Amino acid sequence: MPAASGTPRPPARSGERGIPEAAVARLPLYLRALGGLAEAGETTVSSEELAAASGVNSAKVRKDLSYLGSYGTRGVGYDVQQLVHLIARELGLTQDWPVLIVGIGNLGHALAGYGGFASRGFRVAGLVDADPARVGEEVGGVAVSHLDQLESIVRAEQVSIGVIATPAAAAQSVCDRLVAAGVTSVLNFAPCVLAVPPQVGVRKVDLSIELQILAFHEQRRNVAVAGVAT
Amino acid sequence: MPAASGTPRPPARSGERGIPEAAVARLPLYLRALGGLAEAGETTVSSEELAAASGVNSAKVRKDLSYLGSYGTRGVGYDVQQLVHLIARELGLTQDWPVLIVGIGNLGHALAGYGGFASRGFRVAGLVDADPARVGEEVGGVAVSHLDQLESIVRAEQVSIGVIATPAAAAQSVCDRLVAAGVTSVLNFAPCVLAVPPQVGVRKVDLSIELQILAFHEQRRNVAVAGVAT
Repeated sequence: MPAASGTPRPPARSGERGIPEAAVARLPLYLRALGGLAEAGETTVSSEELAAASGVNSAKVRKDLSYLGSYGTRGVGYDVQQLVHLIARELGLTQDWPVLIVGIGNLGHALAGYGGFASRGFRVAGLVDADPARVGEEVGGVAVSHLDQLESIVRAEQVSIGVIATPAAAAQSVCDRLVAAGVTSVLNFAPCVLAVPPQVGVRKVDLSIELQILAFHEQRRNVAVAGVAT
Repeated sequence: MPAASGTPRPPARSGERGIPEAAVARLPLYLRALGGLAEAGETTVSSEELAAASGVNSAKVRKDLSYLGSYGTRGVGYDVQQLVHLIARELGLTQDWPVLIVGIGNLGHALAGYGGFASRGFRVAGLVDADPARVGEEVGGVAVSHLDQLESIVRAEQVSIGVIATPAAAAQSVCDRLVAAGVTSVLNFAPCVLAVPPQVGVRKVDLSIELQILAFHEQRRNVAVAGVAT
């Protein structure tokens, strides 16, 4: 579970239902599950089905969807397309989000070619790397530019979200440059905590964290098995 | 936030303090922050400092650490090395976890070379891919084997954790093979929900989910700015 460090509380706006942060974090899970149901030709879904497909319990599903003003129809469930629209609108995915990826190593390559971004409105508007040997290489249809171009790409493409996939040692200086150029949201894949001004949002991804949680359960299972054997 | 779908509740064991699932998910964040503090030469840490470094509020930090039997010393704080040990032990990271990565595209490459695994006790014991052209290629010191070798590697290396980095269409059959060969924990990077028997734990990573949460806050900021401008 990545930390939401540095992400300021969003300001209240009139008519807003004040959806809790934890519920916001579950909306993408519902959206993905609904995409699968729509592909399978389903037009309605019960809260239990949506719960099973998204790995959330059904009471939480109903509560979360009620924040969006959606309560379903007794005996029928929720309309799949309507839910997709409500969630995408709530998350701001109905607009185009130009994204700049900094650091085009293996991870940057994987991110640049990741199909899940484009389908959610995240358009890779630029790729930059400090290594001149990488400049000009095309990844996912976008040519890699030199790190020197960071500021000009942010301005020309009106980038609001920067993705940092550099080594940890370079991450803070890249972050500072993104913020100075006008970026207000940063997704950090580098294994370090970034300092940002209060108006800038940062989310951190650590690829080993989920493995650590798996190890916890794996260890418990082993202890339980050993306990049964004695 | 990846879903913990399919992860069974661990069985209770005697003397266990019953640490909640949400607290387990925060322990890796503390561990990473403590690693940074130790590198900086710090020997003690207050709950406020640890909270700031891990992006969790300080009351939650104190509560979580109390599950490990650690309460700190008034006016001094917590001993950094002791906390590292307690958390690593609780998560099961004091033992070696052989991991098999299936699917060595860009993402599999990035995962195979990811430094954050080895330092947490996760040893890449094997890499397999369906493409014969990739077989023999060395990534992070491990040679890629053909998918046909999946079962023999799981058995020879006593792999308990499988990492799936294949396209979505291949993920369920790879998962079924891992489980049949004896793997009991699966980390899924493919954009799909996997069906597993109840004794198998699955955690799912979706690289676009964090971007969606950033977009939510970005949208709110834009609305707030527009509101001020009118």
